[in-house]
Amino acid sequence: MRSYNIGWFPGDGIGPEVTMQGRKVLDAAGARFGFKINWNHIDLGGERYLKTGETVPDSVLEEMRGLDSIYLGAIGHPDVKPGILEQGILLKIRFALDQYINLRPVKLYPGVECPLKDKGPEQIDYVVVRENTEGLYAGSGGCLRKGTVHEIAVQESVNTYMGVERCLRYAFELAAARPRKKLTLCGKTNVLTFAFGLWDRVFHELAKDYPQVELDYAHVDATCMWMVKNPEWFDVIVTDNMFGDIITDLGAITQGGLGIAAGGNINPEGVSMFEPIGGSAPKYTGQGKANPLAAILAGQMMLTELKEDAAAQAVEQAVIGILPTMAGQGAGRMGMTTDEVGDRVAEAIA
Amino acid sequence: MRSYNIGWFPGDGIGPEVTMQGRKVLDAAGARFGFKINWNHIDLGGERYLKTGETVPDSVLEEMRGLDSIYLGAIGHPDVKPGILEQGILLKIRFALDQYINLRPVKLYPGVECPLKDKGPEQIDYVVVRENTEGLYAGSGGCLRKGTVHEIAVQESVNTYMGVERCLRYAFELAAARPRKKLTLCGKTNVLTFAFGLWDRVFHELAKDYPQVELDYAHVDATCMWMVKNPEWFDVIVTDNMFGDIITDLGAITQGGLGIAAGGNINPEGVSMFEPIGGSAPKYTGQGKANPLAAILAGQMMLTELKEDAAAQAVEQAVIGILPTMAGQGAGRMGMTTDEVGDRVAEAIA
Ligand SMILES: CC(C)[C@H](C(=O)O)[C@@H](O)C(=O)O
Ligand SMILES: CC(C)[C@H](C(=O)O)[C@@H](O)C(=O)O
Repeated sequence: MRSYNIGWFPGDGIGPEVTMQGRKVLDAAGARFGFKINWNHIDLGGERYLKTGETVPDSVLEEMRGLDSIYLGAIGHPDVKPGILEQGILLKIRFALDQYINLRPVKLYPGVECPLKDKGPEQIDYVVVRENTEGLYAGSGGCLRKGTVHEIAVQESVNTYMGVERCLRYAFELAAARPRKKLTLCGKTNVLTFAFGLWDRVFHELAKDYPQVELDYAHVDATCMWMVKNPEWFDVIVTDNMFGDIITDLGAITQGGLGIAAGGNINPEGVSMFEPIGGSAPKYTGQGKANPLAAILAGQMMLTELKEDAAAQAVEQAVIGILPTMAGQGAGRMGMTTDEVGDRVAEAIA
Repeated sequence: MRSYNIGWFPGDGIGPEVTMQGRKVLDAAGARFGFKINWNHIDLGGERYLKTGETVPDSVLEEMRGLDSIYLGAIGHPDVKPGILEQGILLKIRFALDQYINLRPVKLYPGVECPLKDKGPEQIDYVVVRENTEGLYAGSGGCLRKGTVHEIAVQESVNTYMGVERCLRYAFELAAARPRKKLTLCGKTNVLTFAFGLWDRVFHELAKDYPQVELDYAHVDATCMWMVKNPEWFDVIVTDNMFGDIITDLGAITQGGLGIAAGGNINPEGVSMFEPIGGSAPKYTGQGKANPLAAILAGQMMLTELKEDAAAQAVEQAVIGILPTMAGQGAGRMGMTTDEVGDRVAEAIA
């Protein structure tokens, strides 16, 4: 029997309860498709930070490197200053494990309420490939004369050929494998001439290796407009770290919001980490109100990454099956509890 | 009789035809409210660049400094490489005339089709104050080992206390003058710690001068979600140049799109420039299909800046009056021609 060592990293707030439903579903998929998941608890997050001052100790990073994948709940604690856990844990892991792709399917499932008029599952079905290890997230920059009226604060977007090339290549491969084979580079070539000059050149260089892929370009501002007005234009969108952060949240809201949107931090040659993209939502913690579908779909993405395609498809089908029976996707507005959603999805798979 | 020297800067594509309607409307407003506009033609844009290689000659900048305001159509020509006119003309003028505020009302008028479900004029009525002279638009950065597989491209966001302070102060003043008095700083403090560290500190420093203003903060990714899901939460949003570029286009689409969205590049102590925010739309040029309302509303913003408040209100009321009689706001889908729209708005004012 195939077996996987997965890091179960519940984190803060609703993280534990939603990932427990995901575990239930993935275990059910394993039972049906012949694999076993060993869940290795990764105990990081706000509580540990408040107790010990630790974000991610090196020993935990070392442990992570030996896993097949990581399944994350959420990071964020009301008693910890914003930024500390995000940078000290989430970004730290992305960088340390070189998870250079942030993959975000924007897919509206039938039965999910969409805030856009006249748009349904036919119109909203694309994927965003976000570079995940450089750009404005490099942490590069500084302040001169800090705290005075002469302060200058500089923040640098650092883009390397290596980082841009591997991200674009991943996006080309993904586009080539999809029926429509269309790849949109989202940038700002008319203003960020250095950064997107590099992106644009490598984009056209790689395009020669993928003659079957249709090339498209949109400025980031226009991209946001089309995501609302004409999401059907998109198939695969590739962009840098900062723009990717922005457009993936916009995409999430068009597919039904944080209750349902999942993403992966992927190192195709290493250890990846999958997560529901919503936060820790402290006010819903422990109340059975949080929607576990985002976590379940993060688990589904993890199965795809593990090449358990049949199981991944079964999970997606089970989610599609339960959606029309739910009252909504928002926390506390599902018409059932967190556990019930997980149970039903797991049952549908078994 | 009061008179104003206005630079009429029609630019490329549909710029001339839509600003001609704006001129008609503003002249009608002048006739009714007792002022006269002298329109000084500013001949810049793609055609001139292709003929002479000039973007903005210093002599034209000098001429602009003597004007009361500038009324811009659009910049962008199909035969000119993207970036040249935007940087050489639009950004050049913003910087040279120190138009440090980009003001973008996001207001859904009754009768205008909105792509969002369940949102009407009551829910979409806020203003974005975008810093317009620094940040990632500084043009700072460079490439190392350009064109090789070792290339590093750096793009810098440069933020000064001076630039941030004057932008935030403008936003506080604006918020304080509106009924709701709520000001949202849109940033990314948890990642762009240097740049938004400065913004956040100055925000809280200035807040002491405006105890009546309710303070709010949202990360840029969350801002995009709320602009779609809960636009009614916003009153005034203040942000940096790059984030402002992104969220104002998103806002534009929620208020009916480029046919109706206007903006101002404002130097409160100097010469400002007002523009419909859509592009030159070459494919619609000269066909009477372009919607001139964005240009007319840009003119209305210019009147407000000139302190012709009664005239500005009359223009807005005239626009509100014509909207329900139009079939739509998209180019070629108005149910009337560019000229007819202008005529009717002008008649309503007279
Ligand atoms: C929490 C934050 C640092 C993170 C990011 O900006 O990448 C989040 O918004 C995301 O998109 O995963
Ligand atoms: C044309 C372009 C340079 C410009 C910008 O990015 O500022 C435009 O998008 C805008 O918002 O006015």
